Amino acid sequence: MKIKKVAIVGASGYSGEELVKLLLSHPHAELTAVTSRLYAGQTLAQIFPKFANHPKAKALKFSEPNSEVLAKQAEIVFLALPHGVAAEFAVPLLKAGCTVIDLSADFRLKSAEVYKDFYAHDHPAPELLAKSVYGLPEIYRDEIKRAKLIASPGCYPTSILLPLIPLLKAGLIKANGIIADSMSGVSGAGRKAELDYLFVECNESVRPYGVPKHRHLSEIEEQLSFAAGAQVTIQFTPHLIPVNRGILTTLYLAPEKHFTNAAEMFTLTGQIAECYQKAYGNEPFVRLLEGKALPDTKNVVGTNVCEFAWRLDPRTGRLIVMSAEDNLVKGASGQAVQSMNILCGFPETAGLV
Amino acid sequence: MKIKKVAIVGASGYSGEELVKLLLSHPHAELTAVTSRLYAGQTLAQIFPKFANHPKAKALKFSEPNSEVLAKQAEIVFLALPHGVAAEFAVPLLKAGCTVIDLSADFRLKSAEVYKDFYAHDHPAPELLAKSVYGLPEIYRDEIKRAKLIASPGCYPTSILLPLIPLLKAGLIKANGIIADSMSGVSGAGRKAELDYLFVECNESVRPYGVPKHRHLSEIEEQLSFAAGAQVTIQFTPHLIPVNRGILTTLYLAPEKHFTNAAEMFTLTGQIAECYQKAYGNEPFVRLLEGKALPDTKNVVGTNVCEFAWRLDPRTGRLIVMSAEDNLVKGASGQAVQSMNILCGFPETAGLV
Amino acid sequence: MKIKKVAIVGASGYSGEELVKLLLSHPHAELTAVTSRLYAGQTLAQIFPKFANHPKAKALKFSEPNSEVLAKQAEIVFLALPHGVAAEFAVPLLKAGCTVIDLSADFRLKSAEVYKDFYAHDHPAPELLAKSVYGLPEIYRDEIKRAKLIASPGCYPTSILLPLIPLLKAGLIKANGIIADSMSGVSGAGRKAELDYLFVECNESVRPYGVPKHRHLSEIEEQLSFAAGAQVTIQFTPHLIPVNRGILTTLYLAPEKHFTNAAEMFTLTGQIAECYQKAYGNEPFVRLLEGKALPDTKNVVGTNVCEFAWRLDPRTGRLIVMSAEDNLVKGASGQAVQSMNILCGFPETAGLV
Amino acid sequence: MKIKKVAIVGASGYSGEELVKLLLSHPHAELTAVTSRLYAGQTLAQIFPKFANHPKAKALKFSEPNSEVLAKQAEIVFLALPHGVAAEFAVPLLKAGCTVIDLSADFRLKSAEVYKDFYAHDHPAPELLAKSVYGLPEIYRDEIKRAKLIASPGCYPTSILLPLIPLLKAGLIKANGIIADSMSGVSGAGRKAELDYLFVECNESVRPYGVPKHRHLSEIEEQLSFAAGAQVTIQFTPHLIPVNRGILTTLYLAPEKHFTNAAEMFTLTGQIAECYQKAYGNEPFVRLLEGKALPDTKNVVGTNVCEFAWRLDPRTGRLIVMSAEDNLVKGASGQAVQSMNILCGFPETAGLV
Repeated sequence: MKIKKVAIVGASGYSGEELVKLLLSHPHAELTAVTSRLYAGQTLAQIFPKFANHPKAKALKFSEPNSEVLAKQAEIVFLALPHGVAAEFAVPLLKAGCTVIDLSADFRLKSAEVYKDFYAHDHPAPELLAKSVYGLPEIYRDEIKRAKLIASPGCYPTSILLPLIPLLKAGLIKANGIIADSMSGVSGAGRKAELDYLFVECNESVRPYGVPKHRHLSEIEEQLSFAAGAQVTIQFTPHLIPVNRGILTTLYLAPEKHFTNAAEMFTLTGQIAECYQKAYGNEPFVRLLEGKALPDTKNVVGTNVCEFAWRLDPRTGRLIVMSAEDNLVKGASGQAVQSMNILCGFPETAGLV
Repeated sequence: MKIKKVAIVGASGYSGEELVKLLLSHPHAELTAVTSRLYAGQTLAQIFPKFANHPKAKALKFSEPNSEVLAKQAEIVFLALPHGVAAEFAVPLLKAGCTVIDLSADFRLKSAEVYKDFYAHDHPAPELLAKSVYGLPEIYRDEIKRAKLIASPGCYPTSILLPLIPLLKAGLIKANGIIADSMSGVSGAGRKAELDYLFVECNESVRPYGVPKHRHLSEIEEQLSFAAGAQVTIQFTPHLIPVNRGILTTLYLAPEKHFTNAAEMFTLTGQIAECYQKAYGNEPFVRLLEGKALPDTKNVVGTNVCEFAWRLDPRTGRLIVMSAEDNLVKGASGQAVQSMNILCGFPETAGLV
Repeated sequence: MKIKKVAIVGASGYSGEELVKLLLSHPHAELTAVTSRLYAGQTLAQIFPKFANHPKAKALKFSEPNSEVLAKQAEIVFLALPHGVAAEFAVPLLKAGCTVIDLSADFRLKSAEVYKDFYAHDHPAPELLAKSVYGLPEIYRDEIKRAKLIASPGCYPTSILLPLIPLLKAGLIKANGIIADSMSGVSGAGRKAELDYLFVECNESVRPYGVPKHRHLSEIEEQLSFAAGAQVTIQFTPHLIPVNRGILTTLYLAPEKHFTNAAEMFTLTGQIAECYQKAYGNEPFVRLLEGKALPDTKNVVGTNVCEFAWRLDPRTGRLIVMSAEDNLVKGASGQAVQSMNILCGFPETAGLV
Repeated sequence: MKIKKVAIVGASGYSGEELVKLLLSHPHAELTAVTSRLYAGQTLAQIFPKFANHPKAKALKFSEPNSEVLAKQAEIVFLALPHGVAAEFAVPLLKAGCTVIDLSADFRLKSAEVYKDFYAHDHPAPELLAKSVYGLPEIYRDEIKRAKLIASPGCYPTSILLPLIPLLKAGLIKANGIIADSMSGVSGAGRKAELDYLFVECNESVRPYGVPKHRHLSEIEEQLSFAAGAQVTIQFTPHLIPVNRGILTTLYLAPEKHFTNAAEMFTLTGQIAECYQKAYGNEPFVRLLEGKALPDTKNVVGTNVCEFAWRLDPRTGRLIVMSAEDNLVKGASGQAVQSMNILCGFPETAGLV
C-alpha cells in the first residue's frame, strides 16, 4: 500500500501530540512536517521525550506554520489549531490540492449563522461549509471516502452523538427533552497556561462550567437534527474532573413509545438492543457493553473505542445511556486518523487500537 | 454551657473518623468513648496519627461496642455503622435514656415497606420509624430540638434535597420528571478493603454505578414527596470520580410555569432568587452563589457548607441547579454535629466551619 | 488579650490564601487589609468562595499594595511575595513601626553574598539582614519574642532543619555528607500560570528538578552551619509529585560514632531518642512517631505539625530520618502565625491545629 | 517467523494484565492460556473490558492453573505469581520441557540463604537457582538466549541496576556507600484488597515504607556485587506516591576518583558520558537524556523504556543519577517480553514500544 505523506499544523497541543504519536507509528503514513510557533527549530525528541526512541523524532523539527511549504511536504494535512485559526490554513491548503483533516470547530457546522451565534465571530470561510464532511466515521463513512475537507468532531459531541443517532433515526426516542450530562478530563482544556487548569486548581475538585450554552451544542444539535429529521435542542452540562483523559456522558432520554408494564419494557429492550446491534455490531471502535457492565473511562483511555451501556428505568419510564471515550483519541486525534484511513483506502483500524 | 458526654460507635470508618475530628475539638462536647471491633484496645493516636497532638487522643482507646457500657459513658451516642447494624445499638441505647444520632440509613424512612424494597431485608426496629427525626437542620430544625433519635441524612440526599425542597414547597417546579446527576469522591464508599476502591482502580477513572435504582432514592423521594405534598419519583445517577471527598450534583428541573419570553424569564428569575433567599438567606451552612460563580467541591471540602448556583436556560425552558458539599461533613458527620448542636441548645455553628 | 491588627501583602497566592484562612479565624488577630495587584477591588468572598461564610470575607476588599496605607491599617504585616519584591515593602513598613513577618527568602540569610550567589541579584536591603530573625520557633523562640522582622523559613528547609539541628547540636551525626531527598506537592510552585504546573503535566508524573543547586540550599546550609559550629554543605534533591500539599523528606545521615554491634546500636538508639525527646518532647507542633509508624503527608496536611520517624540501619551503619509536613502550613503560613503568636505573647498554638 | 504459543499463570494481577496486553498484540506469539483462580471460567473480555475488542479476548477463558495442562498448551509460560508460589509451577513446567519466564522473586537470587534471610521461608527449589538467568537484557543478553528459566527482575531493581552496573564495571564510582531513593506508583503493590492501597489512603499522600530492609535489596545487592567484583551493600528507601504507574529513582554516588577542580570535573564528565554511551548507546530501551532534561515518569509510562540523567555536583563531589521507568512494563512485563524476544530469536523490540 502506498505510503501517504502527512503533516500536522499545531503539533504542540494535546491533540497535536496525540496525532504525532499515532502518525509516527502508522503503517501507511509518513509524518513529514510538524509545526509549532512555540517550538519552531526544536526536534520532536526535544519537546516530547516520550517519542525520542522513534528514529524520526530525532530528525524531525518543528517548523513555523506556512501553507505554501506544507503543501509541498504533505498530501494530507491535519490541523490541530484553535477555531478561527484553522480556516486560515485550510483555504490555501485545499487550493494547493491537499486533503485537510481539521480538528477544530471551523468546518463542523453547515450554517455560518449558527457558527457566529456560538463562536462570536463571523465564519472565516463560509464557502467551505457545504463541502466539508463531518468526520464521524460510523455515521458518514461513505462521505468521508470522497472528502477533501474533513471536520473532525469535538470530544463531547462524539460521546453524545454515537449513542443518540441510531435511536433517533429508528424513532425509538423523543427528539425533544434530551439531556446530556458529561464529565471531562483536563486535557480537554488544551495545553494552555491558565490558572484554572493548574494542578492545584483541578485536583480534588469537580465543577460544572459553560452552563447552559456550551459551544459544542451547536454541532451536537445540528447532527441530531439531521438524524431526527427535525430541529433538536438539547440540554448539555459539561463538568471538569481531575483525570488527564476521558469523557463520561450520561444521557437521559424519553422512549418514543411509553412502556407501562413488563411486557412492553421487554419489547422495547429488544428494539433498542437490535437498533444498537444493527448500527454498531460490526463497528471496530464502538463497544456495546453487555450484562451488568457499565462504562468506565479507564477501559477506553489510550484507545479509539467509545463504549456504552444503557438501562430502561421502570420507575421513571426513561432510557439512560452512558458512554465513555478518550477525549484525545476517539474524541479527537484517533478519530481523525480513522477518517484518514477511510479516505485513503487503508484498513480502517490501521495504526489505531 | 454544660459539657455533654458523647460517644461514637463505629469510629474507624471515614464518617467515624470525621466525627472524631469534629468532636475532639468541639467546645461543648467531651468524647468519652469510641468503639471499633477492628481496633479495640488501641488508642486514637495509634490508629489516627493525625489526631495524636490532641491530649485526648493518647488516652482514649477504642473499645468493643457494647450498648450497656456506652449508655453509662455518654448522653449522646453517634452511630457510624452499616445499615441494619445501627438499629441493634439504637434500641437499647434509647431505652437506657441516651439520645441517638444515627448516620446510617436505618431510621431515615418512615415506611418499613420502602425500607425492605430498597435494602432487601426487613426493618430491624420498625416501631422506631415514627419517632425518628430526619436530621436535615435547614428543614427540620424544630423537630430536631425535641428529638431523641435523629436519622442523619445520606450524602447524596443532602446535596439533592437542600436545593429542591424550597422550590417544591413554593410550587416553582414540577414534581415530576426531576433528574439528579451526581458525582462523588471515593470516601463515599467507606473504608472497605475491596478491589473496586483501590487507588489504581479509581484513579484516572470515572464511572456510573447503582443505575437505575440506588438505595438513597428511597429517602430522597420520601422527603421530596413530603415537600411536594404528592408522590415524587426521580431519576438519579451517581458516578464515582477520583477525589477523596466531595459531591457535585446537577439537577435538571422543569419550572411549573413555562417561560416563553425574556419578561417571563425575568419574573421567574426573581421568584427563584426570592425563594432561595427566604429559605437559606440566613442559614449558616448554605451558600447561595452569586454572579457567574458555579459550585466547586474544592470550595466546600473540609467545611459543613453546601453551596449552590442555578441557571434558567432560555433555549430549553429548564432550570438547572448545581450543588456541592463535602460528603463526609455536610453529607454525614458535620451535619450530625449540627443536629447535636441544635438539640443540645448549643450555638448551631459550634465546632463547625 | 488585646486584639492585634494584621495585614497580608500578596494575599492571592497559595501561602497568602492559607494566611487568610488562619488569620480570619485567629482568636487574637483582626485581619484589616489584604493586598493583591490582580484582584484589587474585589472582596475576599469573591476571590475565595470557600471563605465566603466568614462575615469579614464579604466586607474585606483586596487593595493595591501600598506601604504607607498598610502602616496605618496594621501593627503586624505578613509579606507573601516573591523574593526580591518583599524587601521593597519590608523597609518602609519597619520604618513606620510595623512588625514584619516575611514569608519570602529575602531576609532568611545572614550573608548578602550567599544571597547573590543563590538568587542571582544583589540583596535589596542588606542592612536588614543582621536584624532579621529566622522564624523557626522550635529553634529561635527567644529571638522571635523580641523580633521586629521575622524571616519565616522555606518549606523544604523546615522539613530538613527540624530533624537535623538537634542531632548536629548534640554531635550525634557527622556534619559532612548529609543527603536530603525531598518530595513536594505542586502548591509549592505557587499559583503561577505556567505550563509545567498544569494538571495534565503534573498528574501521573514524578520528576526531580533544581538539581543539584536549589535555592533553598542557601538557608538550609547556613542554619546547619550555625548548629554544627562549622561550615556544612549538603546534598539536596527536590522532586515534584502529584499532590496538592505536603512535603516528605528522607535524610541519609552518618552517626558520629560508628556502631558495629547490637550493643553499640542500642546505645546510639537511646542517645538519639533522648536527643529528640529533649528537643521536641514538649513542642506542640513536632510529632515524634513511635513504634512502627512512619511519616505520611496525609497525617499532617492541614495542620502545623511536622512529624518524623528515624531508623538506624545495621546493614549500612546509617541513620535514616523521614519527616512530613504541610508545605503551606508548617512550611509557610502556619509557621508564620506561630511566630506571630510568640512575638505577641499569645498562646503559641492560638489559631493553629 | 514461527509463532510461539505462550501462556500466563496469574493473569489477573497488574503484571499479568500488562502481559495479556503485550502478548495479545505480539506479532510472533499466540496467547493460548491464561489462568486465574479468582476468574476461572470467565473470558478475558469479561474481566478486562479494555481488551474486549481483540478477537481473542472474547474466546479465551481464564482457567484454573494446572501445570500439566499448561505444558500442553504453551511452549513458553510466564509466571506472574507471588514469591514462593511461582516455584511450584516452574519445577513441573521445566520438567515438561517448557521455557519459564518468572516475574516473581523466586529465581532471582543465586543464594538460597540470602533468599531465606529476605523472604523468611526456605527456598522452594534451590536446585534451580544455578540454572536461572537474571532477565535484565541489557546486561545478560547472551545468557538469556540460552536460558530455559528466566527470573525477570523486580521493578525497583531495574531502575537501580541499569544506571549503576556500567559505572561499577568501569570502576567510576565507589562500590560502598551507594544510596537509592525511590518513589513508586501504587500498582507496584499489586491488585490486592488491602486498606493501605485504597484510593483514599493513597491519594494526597506520600510515605516511605519497608525501611530499612526492603526485600528487593537482596537481588539489587547480588547483581551490584557481580558488577563490582566485591560485596556491595546499599541504602534503599522506597516511597509510595499517588500515581498508577511509574518509578523514579535518585541515586547518590561517590566517584571513585575525587574531583577537586573544573578540569577534573570535565574529565570525569567525559568518562561517565562515554561509559553510558558505550553501555547503552545502542540499546533500544534505555534513553540517556541530554542537555537540561531530567527524567519524568510521564515520559516512560506505557513504554518499555528506562530513561536517565546524571549530574556531577561540584559543591559535594557527588554524582547524582536519576532514572524513570514504568514499573509494570520495563519493571515487569515489558522486560519479560523483551527476554522472550531474545530467547526466541525475535527482533528484540517486537511487540514493545
